[in-house]
Amino acid sequence: MAHGHGHSHGHEYEPDHEHGEEHDELQHCIEECLNCHAVCTMTVQYCLTEGGEHSDVNLIGVLLDCAELCQVSANFMLRGSPHHVVTCAGCAELCRACEEACRSISGDERLVHCAEICAACAESCERMANASADDSGDVEED
Amino acid sequence: MAHGHGHSHGHEYEPDHEHGEEHDELQHCIEECLNCHAVCTMTVQYCLTEGGEHSDVNLIGVLLDCAELCQVSANFMLRGSPHHVVTCAGCAELCRACEEACRSISGDERLVHCAEICAACAESCERMANASADDSGDVEED
Amino acid sequence: MAHGHGHSHGHEYEPDHEHGEEHDELQHCIEECLNCHAVCTMTVQYCLTEGGEHSDVNLIGVLLDCAELCQVSANFMLRGSPHHVVTCAGCAELCRACEEACRSISGDERLVHCAEICAACAESCERMANASADDSGDVEED
Amino acid sequence: MAHGHGHSHGHEYEPDHEHGEEHDELQHCIEECLNCHAVCTMTVQYCLTEGGEHSDVNLIGVLLDCAELCQVSANFMLRGSPHHVVTCAGCAELCRACEEACRSISGDERLVHCAEICAACAESCERMANASADDSGDVEED
Repeated sequence: MAHGHGHSHGHEYEPDHEHGEEHDELQHCIEECLNCHAVCTMTVQYCLTEGGEHSDVNLIGVLLDCAELCQVSANFMLRGSPHHVVTCAGCAELCRACEEACRSISGDERLVHCAEICAACAESCERMANASADDSGDVEED
Repeated sequence: MAHGHGHSHGHEYEPDHEHGEEHDELQHCIEECLNCHAVCTMTVQYCLTEGGEHSDVNLIGVLLDCAELCQVSANFMLRGSPHHVVTCAGCAELCRACEEACRSISGDERLVHCAEICAACAESCERMANASADDSGDVEED
Repeated sequence: MAHGHGHSHGHEYEPDHEHGEEHDELQHCIEECLNCHAVCTMTVQYCLTEGGEHSDVNLIGVLLDCAELCQVSANFMLRGSPHHVVTCAGCAELCRACEEACRSISGDERLVHCAEICAACAESCERMANASADDSGDVEED
Repeated sequence: MAHGHGHSHGHEYEPDHEHGEEHDELQHCIEECLNCHAVCTMTVQYCLTEGGEHSDVNLIGVLLDCAELCQVSANFMLRGSPHHVVTCAGCAELCRACEEACRSISGDERLVHCAEICAACAESCERMANASADDSGDVEED
């Protein structure tokens, strides 16, 4: 069977090019990125609806930045691109910045939730960026 | 609690602006679009790796088109945009075209699988486009 | 020379598949979409910086929607996709909605400017959508 | 007049937050990124139409990667994001990889042209990434 995986859990983010533990890490990272993209995108709407300090240009800006780079990072991994290390590294940075911005407004559970999702995505992306830097010396040696 | 939902099933595509059955339809459609985006994106890589009729410019082209419009359609719904009816209608059309293109190459289970995902997404998007056209006369009456 | 055009005006949005007048219309529409995408994206930042009625969730929302669909519509045309008729039709609709939202706030030249750009893009996209509907009843016969 | 610039050359990629020479660099980089995005996207279609070594999965893959990251990098700059240094740095890397892939197929003027566009974009992005790293110690020090 040409395509014997991907049916067990509803979503099917299973690029062909990786196997075993590494493969699981990649899939996990795709899911974290897609999830973080979704949560940040919804949080923009929530913040604009709340108004006040929630609609500060820097908070909305970093939410938009983070959402966009998460989407791109997921796309690189879905395409099986060897360059996902570049986007994962950048994505991790944006997720950390977005986490910090969300935590800067106190007393809002939605923002705390968004911060937690960003933190989880950052961790996963950092692992991907470092793992790839380790085992593929020829791809990313700058 | 400001944000009392979205923790039960890993993914959290739950815009605030809809409730009840309609809300479930919306969430379901977001998931279908994200899933179809992912599968079409991976299918591009698969087809290019296979080569031959699989790397025909029209097949790759419609897979790229479908993936991109699914992503955008999901984004509109995640933002709670009243204009998601526009993107859902367009997305349904592209999913049908992509389904047809995938079925035009016989004997390939991966393409059959992609066609099925496209068909499911098309149905869900058609329901969203029609539901919105029904109950929001003020949004889309051109 | 395999690629003897596109050098006259800095940008080179010249897909291969169209010729003559139709070709010029297509190129013009790509430029309008890219321009409208850029202006709407910058207008989001401007509005969030201004605050008050400028950061209303519906205004920011339709600016984000319009920017995203303009980008996608340009991408379909750059790819030479026969399905650009679908995205151009949707894009025209969003541009009209965005134009209206921008005009709803009076006395702001930046928003008037954004409205004008949206109107120009809408017109160009409408022409593309109708032209394609006319001469390719079945859309896919090239 | 609230918005007294941007009318001289058709395109209007003029975020508000930068001035003078730095501002010109930013604008120039936005244009390079949008141009590179457009050329890579058209080159994908060209390569798929040519077939053979032109439709190699690695060449098409890096063209898609480069196009996508150029688009995102332009979007960050258009939004006036302080994090554009992250996307510009990544974009420069992808442009270099894409340039190399295009040059690896000899005797094709279209690919030579694409390689030149990628090289120009890479240079501009590198300048942006370095300039920002220099003068904004507060933005990117994590």
